[in-house]
Amino acid sequence: MNRIYDVVILGSGPGGIQAAIHASRKKADVLMLGRMHKSSLFWAHVENFCCQLKITGEEMLETGKMQAENFGTEIIEEDVLSILPQGKHFQLTIESGRTFTARSLVLATGTSRNRLGVPGEKELLGKGVSYCVECDGGFFRNEPVAVVGGQSAAVGGSVTLSHTASKVWLINDRFDVAPELLAQAREQGVTILENAEVAAIEGENAVTGLQLKDGTRLDVAGVFIELGAKGVLELAATLGLELDETMKYVQTDKKQRTNIPGVYAAGDICGPPLQIAKAVGEGCVAGIEAASYSKRLKTAQTDADKETD
Amino acid sequence: MNRIYDVVILGSGPGGIQAAIHASRKKADVLMLGRMHKSSLFWAHVENFCCQLKITGEEMLETGKMQAENFGTEIIEEDVLSILPQGKHFQLTIESGRTFTARSLVLATGTSRNRLGVPGEKELLGKGVSYCVECDGGFFRNEPVAVVGGQSAAVGGSVTLSHTASKVWLINDRFDVAPELLAQAREQGVTILENAEVAAIEGENAVTGLQLKDGTRLDVAGVFIELGAKGVLELAATLGLELDETMKYVQTDKKQRTNIPGVYAAGDICGPPLQIAKAVGEGCVAGIEAASYSKRLKTAQTDADKETD
Repeated sequence: MNRIYDVVILGSGPGGIQAAIHASRKKADVLMLGRMHKSSLFWAHVENFCCQLKITGEEMLETGKMQAENFGTEIIEEDVLSILPQGKHFQLTIESGRTFTARSLVLATGTSRNRLGVPGEKELLGKGVSYCVECDGGFFRNEPVAVVGGQSAAVGGSVTLSHTASKVWLINDRFDVAPELLAQAREQGVTILENAEVAAIEGENAVTGLQLKDGTRLDVAGVFIELGAKGVLELAATLGLELDETMKYVQTDKKQRTNIPGVYAAGDICGPPLQIAKAVGEGCVAGIEAASYSKRLKTAQTDADKETD
Repeated sequence: MNRIYDVVILGSGPGGIQAAIHASRKKADVLMLGRMHKSSLFWAHVENFCCQLKITGEEMLETGKMQAENFGTEIIEEDVLSILPQGKHFQLTIESGRTFTARSLVLATGTSRNRLGVPGEKELLGKGVSYCVECDGGFFRNEPVAVVGGQSAAVGGSVTLSHTASKVWLINDRFDVAPELLAQAREQGVTILENAEVAAIEGENAVTGLQLKDGTRLDVAGVFIELGAKGVLELAATLGLELDETMKYVQTDKKQRTNIPGVYAAGDICGPPLQIAKAVGEGCVAGIEAASYSKRLKTAQTDADKETD
């Protein structure tokens, strides 16, 4: 049987860390997932967050992680690959293939619609260039495609595409995922190009190819740029999560509740201002609310069990 | 003419500081009011705020104040005594008698319905014991009353009561307000007892007297316990501010707007969870929103002036 957690937090930036601290302090069983150095805070020069100066983003995250662990949070530095509703619970699969059950979720994965910044990318957006495998993968049935990126969104995306595309290239200078996930991509026949960088995307009104910096040219009809971890849109696709009016961020109320009972969100994923201060504030509320929710869920379950006896 | 600020922040705890940082970064003219050491953070042992450890509340506030000043915030360590709407602006008077005009306000004064913790206090609440001069002062017309506390709420409250009560005692071990305000109380005939502490409040079904620790007994019909700075309820009374359903906190939306255009709120004043993380998160949003609001107000004013020309 899967290990059941009261609260599983997706993302380990300031919003996720603050949620972990507060949920753990409420004696909830908490698991925090995600790679710290993927937080936009990791490389940030922090000067506008009360009340600290002369501290790097990396130091902040290290400290925050230690705080969360001190309060009892378990941390696994892997991304989530899939989330499936299962009755009132959620079934999670992470990069290494391990699965867990969560009574409640806090989505704090930030935003990472990163651009590649190469010729053709902007011009061919929607004409073969996409930032979302889950959204647009179906358009390239039996056609050759390339996925650019080295994290879970790219590697996981290449696996997804391998079921429908005629050929899948996975391109990046280096890969930063669990070895199990890369192995899975390899097994599915994905051609992995490491130490490779994209120079340009080619095509007039539709993508026709990809030019690499070493001179290689690949014939592809689709280019998926997946430079971040699993993001908002992917989660929205699998969970039925409601987005805000910009369709870029998760819609939450003042208690950081989403439209799905048991699913909370915090930080940049909820929209601007994209600030550390706002992330920790929302994380605090989301962590406390998620812990309370899972407690109520357990109590209701116990009562139901008693009635069944 | 009064100095006009784009944003005036009431309160200099973590919520106020974060609002000051973000409003100043948006190039707004910002004034932050309040005494840092009155923040509940000042004496706090901080361990649940991402991402810092081994820092005292006092150090955090000192750092935060420095950050706000570096970004251009002006700081005056005095409390506000009155706020009056004036067209689309707000007219503020602070302890020393100085007045300012604000285009927008951020309320971040925290909560300070502090109890005195003496015999009779709980038993006689509503029977002569009150925590709000503005709310209950009118009930003691031509009767002797005592005000307990050493900050602006108490000293300002004694001045207010001096207009209607037959006699006003102001009692505390020490006073921590601008000398001008204490002088005003003295001029109004308030009897100030310094180095004095309350031992018990006396009376059966109504307050009849006050017992001090040095043995002194005062004949009073009302005892006002005002241990904090000017709080939510007082501001609510003068501004028409909407409170939440508990009637203890200010009602805000996700943008930290209150029901009054131009008035924002952040931190404990907005209700639980009463946490530093939530305060800075709300302060960030309130500061940014207040700065934008005052910018829009100035633009509209300029346009109106042009039309008049």
